[in-house]
Amino acid sequence: MRLVYRGKTKDVYEDGPYLIFYFKDSLLGENGREDTGGNSVIGVRTGKGSAVLRQTEFFFNLLGRNGVRTHFVERIDDRRARFLKAERIPLEVVYRFKAYGSFLRRYRGWVEPLRELRMVEFTLKDDSLGDPLITEEAVSRLGIASEEELERMKETTRLVAGILREFFLEKGLDPVDFKLEFGRLNGELLVIDELSGDTMRVMKEGRLLTQEELLGVVE
Amino acid sequence: MRLVYRGKTKDVYEDGPYLIFYFKDSLLGENGREDTGGNSVIGVRTGKGSAVLRQTEFFFNLLGRNGVRTHFVERIDDRRARFLKAERIPLEVVYRFKAYGSFLRRYRGWVEPLRELRMVEFTLKDDSLGDPLITEEAVSRLGIASEEELERMKETTRLVAGILREFFLEKGLDPVDFKLEFGRLNGELLVIDELSGDTMRVMKEGRLLTQEELLGVVE
Repeated sequence: MRLVYRGKTKDVYEDGPYLIFYFKDSLLGENGREDTGGNSVIGVRTGKGSAVLRQTEFFFNLLGRNGVRTHFVERIDDRRARFLKAERIPLEVVYRFKAYGSFLRRYRGWVEPLRELRMVEFTLKDDSLGDPLITEEAVSRLGIASEEELERMKETTRLVAGILREFFLEKGLDPVDFKLEFGRLNGELLVIDELSGDTMRVMKEGRLLTQEELLGVVE
Repeated sequence: MRLVYRGKTKDVYEDGPYLIFYFKDSLLGENGREDTGGNSVIGVRTGKGSAVLRQTEFFFNLLGRNGVRTHFVERIDDRRARFLKAERIPLEVVYRFKAYGSFLRRYRGWVEPLRELRMVEFTLKDDSLGDPLITEEAVSRLGIASEEELERMKETTRLVAGILREFFLEKGLDPVDFKLEFGRLNGELLVIDELSGDTMRVMKEGRLLTQEELLGVVE
């Protein structure tokens, strides 16, 4: 199998019409502090990769049961899973239930932490630029996605927000934010990449859940 | 008169129902280099304040003749002018004819310089945060402006773009970008602040015009 991408938290291999993801044990955070939702590697924890895979399998199946197509096909083993090979759109679609993280830093003084937002943001997926915020008009002018694709991504992201909100509320938990990526396959948009403690923040009584705690929720 | 604001390029005084702007001789630029459109003070040039006032008077009159209301009332002397006192909306509304400046830095590698854009961007006017980009959804969620006001600001900004485009094209010049600010007065939105070489970039044969050259154009 050919390695097509070496990422912070996973390596991606090509396998015929599929992609194989290998989930690594790297921990993400901000400024050296672990933060599910952070964007820098701050260390390693044994078992973290398999936890992210179990979470992704769980949440992608939850989305699938609720009518949202993802590229997940099947788990191979503890650390690897098979996915459909879609053409990746280089955007992160961020849904903010509440103000936290980069949103608070960006608009410090203009918004109180955890203020209700329920809004979608797009960032350009480019680590060397710090994944900058990008407007829908700029996305379409730069030819990254069409206006119709933008509308479909927003619609799907709001649908996923509703699914996650209901799931977490039933468990007495409070979703803060999450991010999705999308890919094109045969004219359709699929949710791709992962959905796990690395791509969402969830609170219980005002405190962020750790990876382990989130794993307890889905198992 | 009470000083209400001490800015990088002007001081603002209150005078009954009016504001008096005093235009200073500070030069704006980026990284120590003069750049009409830059956002840091990089020096002083005698006569610069009066040039910006003459440009603002010229362009606000040009907008007024074309049906765009501004807060300009009258010039008092070489350095001071009287304006209607509107409630300032803390946004900069940027119109980009072409990709330049902060847009190129933000999306480096994703857009070639001077690519045609014809788009509107909002930034939050907060120097301590570096005037961050803000989406329309965030503007309305943070209570900075209503959705209706956002629509009106975009529409007016596109109208101004058309007026400036026509004005400069007739003179063989090529507008690159400009920024507007808006204020509320009696339920109406007015273009406020200034419109000058400090808030627009114009090219001639691929080279940016200096303040002096722009002054030559409007006189």
